[in-house]
Amino acid sequence: MILTVTPNPALDVTYRVPRLVPGGVVKADRVYRRAGGKGVNVARVLHSLGVPTLAVLPVGGSDGRAVVEELDSSGLAYQTVEVAGPTRRTVTVVSTADSTETLVSEPGEPPSDVEWAALLDVVRGRIGEASVLVSSGSLPPGAPVDAHAQLLALAAEHGVPSVLDTSGEPLLAGLAGRPAVVKPNADELRQVIGSDEPLRAMEMLRDAGAGAVVASFGARGMMARCADGTWLATPSRSLTGNATGAGDAAVAGIAEALAGGTPDWPGLLRRVVALSASAVLGPLAGDIDHAYLEAELPAVTVEEIG
Amino acid sequence: MILTVTPNPALDVTYRVPRLVPGGVVKADRVYRRAGGKGVNVARVLHSLGVPTLAVLPVGGSDGRAVVEELDSSGLAYQTVEVAGPTRRTVTVVSTADSTETLVSEPGEPPSDVEWAALLDVVRGRIGEASVLVSSGSLPPGAPVDAHAQLLALAAEHGVPSVLDTSGEPLLAGLAGRPAVVKPNADELRQVIGSDEPLRAMEMLRDAGAGAVVASFGARGMMARCADGTWLATPSRSLTGNATGAGDAAVAGIAEALAGGTPDWPGLLRRVVALSASAVLGPLAGDIDHAYLEAELPAVTVEEIG
Repeated sequence: MILTVTPNPALDVTYRVPRLVPGGVVKADRVYRRAGGKGVNVARVLHSLGVPTLAVLPVGGSDGRAVVEELDSSGLAYQTVEVAGPTRRTVTVVSTADSTETLVSEPGEPPSDVEWAALLDVVRGRIGEASVLVSSGSLPPGAPVDAHAQLLALAAEHGVPSVLDTSGEPLLAGLAGRPAVVKPNADELRQVIGSDEPLRAMEMLRDAGAGAVVASFGARGMMARCADGTWLATPSRSLTGNATGAGDAAVAGIAEALAGGTPDWPGLLRRVVALSASAVLGPLAGDIDHAYLEAELPAVTVEEIG
Repeated sequence: MILTVTPNPALDVTYRVPRLVPGGVVKADRVYRRAGGKGVNVARVLHSLGVPTLAVLPVGGSDGRAVVEELDSSGLAYQTVEVAGPTRRTVTVVSTADSTETLVSEPGEPPSDVEWAALLDVVRGRIGEASVLVSSGSLPPGAPVDAHAQLLALAAEHGVPSVLDTSGEPLLAGLAGRPAVVKPNADELRQVIGSDEPLRAMEMLRDAGAGAVVASFGARGMMARCADGTWLATPSRSLTGNATGAGDAAVAGIAEALAGGTPDWPGLLRRVVALSASAVLGPLAGDIDHAYLEAELPAVTVEEIG
């Protein structure tokens, strides 16, 4: 199975409103609640593709209980670590009139040293069954900045390849865990070198420990750079929708490919771009449009660029 | 004491963010949680003025427990009715960069007939101790549209004057309960007659059962219309801030005046305008700036206009 770890999960609450106007007052006409956090979303995509997966996450408080109840009803396999701090919430406001999605996230609660060690223990206990480890998302405040590197090191000890998807300091510190693939987006690449030179930033991530870099550029597609070369894959058309879900679907595709052994990079990139596009059409992060995925797969353009 | 009823209370959650941009993603740097709903806010203002009060409200689920915990820590006197449906949440996003407050509210859960009857029973049991009944805010979906009228009728049976603060159908249906005062704002008056003729709308509310109408027009001040005349009170200056809290502070001032017997209308209006202004400066609904209240009281202009 593919083991996903989400150090800072959330109860994702989505409010559908007629129109969101800053400074205004509006009543939600629909409210959706779902377990979230990047690793949980990745597990959800894998599960919907029929790929065995295990989501590992800390949970606390009443929103933590709501996360567990939703995971139960979704049929996702998971293993939780009980923590004292309440699970954070993200709030997404979907404005129907102008099709915007606005996301406000709570930062999360600091884990204790004992709680953090317990999360590592769960991963240590299950990594032997895993074909790939995915370590995704932000860290709660107060977590060790090299948290992702610690998780990835557990995978490395068992010869299990890993995928890292985070940003800022946790990304740079996480590279010490030598992920097989990191998946930054354009903004995250800019943060790495402070300028808009994606290829240079990707090379820097490889120099710092990443085996390969698969970078997402929204509707412009994705680039993969590894020891064997550099490829650009472009979707057949530009879509607007759920960008958070798109990144997580890409990570799911990368993990799925790594689980099959050494990846065929152009083929991986084609599938990952099609998965991202099909997730943009999904109503919530973790949903994909399976019909669109099948139609888009042959329509993606892949070219070697270096 | 002044008894306030909140048929559709909420856990009010406030996120402070650097800047709210529709379509964007932002992390909250501060999160505040507080018991809310208009009647709860009114009770909070009265409590901070040293006026004995009792807040009556239904609570359910984990957010209902959070409401009770916060009421306990605030020292507000309250009496709850346990209901099956979870207490709704309101989300206010305070954008620091441009000083906007954007509010998204959940609609609430329908009460059962038994739960609604239990809320009436609590009010029936305590109304004998009350000098004034305040019935405030929206109704949960599925509640009887004349819910406020039913509550006001319990007060009328005991000769207790009442204040009604709601909007739309619940306002019109609530007038059958013959409130001593209703407190619409400019928008709510427009809804009453479908045009921007506030004095005519106020007269219609009186014809339909309200003893007096105290209408709020934001920074332009407030008007009172009753059998004895019509007055306009204007604050000394225009303030920007918390409009929700301003309306609830006005209702608190009206209830406080009614508790003292037949009101001196110009004096009531002066205090209510000063209270509203001092609530605009409060960080959260239910907070008032006591120093500003004292300074503003003599600075309000009151004139008889008909």
